[in-house]
Amino acid sequence: MALDAGTITERFKGTLGELLGIRFVEASPERVVAELTYREDLTTVGGALHGGTLMAFADTVGAAATVVNLPPGASTTTLESKTNFFAAGEAPVLKAVSKPLHIGRTTMVWQTTIGTADGKVCAVVTQTQLVLEG
Amino acid sequence: MALDAGTITERFKGTLGELLGIRFVEASPERVVAELTYREDLTTVGGALHGGTLMAFADTVGAAATVVNLPPGASTTTLESKTNFFAAGEAPVLKAVSKPLHIGRTTMVWQTTIGTADGKVCAVVTQTQLVLEG
Amino acid sequence: MALDAGTITERFKGTLGELLGIRFVEASPERVVAELTYREDLTTVGGALHGGTLMAFADTVGAAATVVNLPPGASTTTLESKTNFFAAGEAPVLKAVSKPLHIGRTTMVWQTTIGTADGKVCAVVTQTQLVLEG
Amino acid sequence: MALDAGTITERFKGTLGELLGIRFVEASPERVVAELTYREDLTTVGGALHGGTLMAFADTVGAAATVVNLPPGASTTTLESKTNFFAAGEAPVLKAVSKPLHIGRTTMVWQTTIGTADGKVCAVVTQTQLVLEG
Repeated sequence: MALDAGTITERFKGTLGELLGIRFVEASPERVVAELTYREDLTTVGGALHGGTLMAFADTVGAAATVVNLPPGASTTTLESKTNFFAAGEAPVLKAVSKPLHIGRTTMVWQTTIGTADGKVCAVVTQTQLVLEG
Repeated sequence: MALDAGTITERFKGTLGELLGIRFVEASPERVVAELTYREDLTTVGGALHGGTLMAFADTVGAAATVVNLPPGASTTTLESKTNFFAAGEAPVLKAVSKPLHIGRTTMVWQTTIGTADGKVCAVVTQTQLVLEG
Repeated sequence: MALDAGTITERFKGTLGELLGIRFVEASPERVVAELTYREDLTTVGGALHGGTLMAFADTVGAAATVVNLPPGASTTTLESKTNFFAAGEAPVLKAVSKPLHIGRTTMVWQTTIGTADGKVCAVVTQTQLVLEG
Repeated sequence: MALDAGTITERFKGTLGELLGIRFVEASPERVVAELTYREDLTTVGGALHGGTLMAFADTVGAAATVVNLPPGASTTTLESKTNFFAAGEAPVLKAVSKPLHIGRTTMVWQTTIGTADGKVCAVVTQTQLVLEG
């Protein structure tokens, strides 16, 4: 049974993913996509989305992408994450697309690109997930 | 006029800092400290604080530490951020301590250590802030 | 006058680029490619290429890619660099391909993928270059 | 039997560590120190030490520090490395000091500070080492 986008959104109920309003819209082993709607309480001083909002958004999508690829019984934890910021995260909605740089037995590395509705790249996040045997 | 901890907390009203419940408790040019109380809606699946919560927490403290050191009229933006995760962020409260690795005219680099109430280190975050002339 | 691959190789004469044997083979504003031949004195214990060799290789190519894109009179310095290692760097030859994640007036961010002759990805390196006005 | 500085230097004979001229001068489980003498063939255009030289220097010291802490029969590989550059690496000699941010059973994270003879910090490198069971 594959993990579809709706099931992933459901799983994050009650977590930071729900607080931020992250909605998964696509999920396959090679690509996971989610959306987040701009809200004032997700901004930093000045009105752009907070860098922490972008990092939390990407972290959620990269972790979900790992889960989609886990063997039965295994789980995952994030070892490290690196973000480069390029442009302000603006209304009305942001999209995050996670693709694998590496899918191994011990670690997976996902790169998530966050962009605005008009295609401007706001941030690129690369994270290493440790695979924990079940 | 120096920026004290209370003033910084006040400045982040209405931003992600308030949504996460970040409270600044100490602010000097060489060290900025803040606290965050564990809440269920800041967790990830499993009950530990979400990695994104930790990164957003650190990002807020590192940015504030930069502001404390800015020359008059200047502002700042985060160029990049790197996090290493070591242990789960657990109740009841986390503390983030930011110290400078580098304070230059063009960039500042802050390293923030996030720990639990009993002193366990959860994450270390290193971020580069660009200094924008006023 | 464009900077071609031969001119770049020539410029690095007498530097670490020559010591490691880096040869530029392609240079355009959107893509810079170089090669490095496996040598025993570039390895680490065990016989694979040293992680430092891979990082120095990528750093050289990313810096050259920045130079190709600099406005007249400007220069550049590396602010930070992040490497993920995926597989051993093996004989006979490695190729590094640098592509831009961001080309701005103040900073450029280049991502360099290092692979073996048979297409295995050894490392991905992302570096931020500061642009210094002339 | 503890690994002393001389033994570590000996182990890197024939590798990149020897090519760069890295000499270990102190080795304990909590701190490993090495030196590197400025040479023209380790520079970049302009005369400062190449960023790749600094990264390779740190990588070598951080890996050695991991080996000092490995349980019997285990080995290690570098998962990822992050460098922030602060100042030019200048003659006559650089010193690298590695200290642990985390020593776990699965991973170790070392932070290496590279400085000049007069105490100027050139770079800070943070690297994650995977511990491979024997």
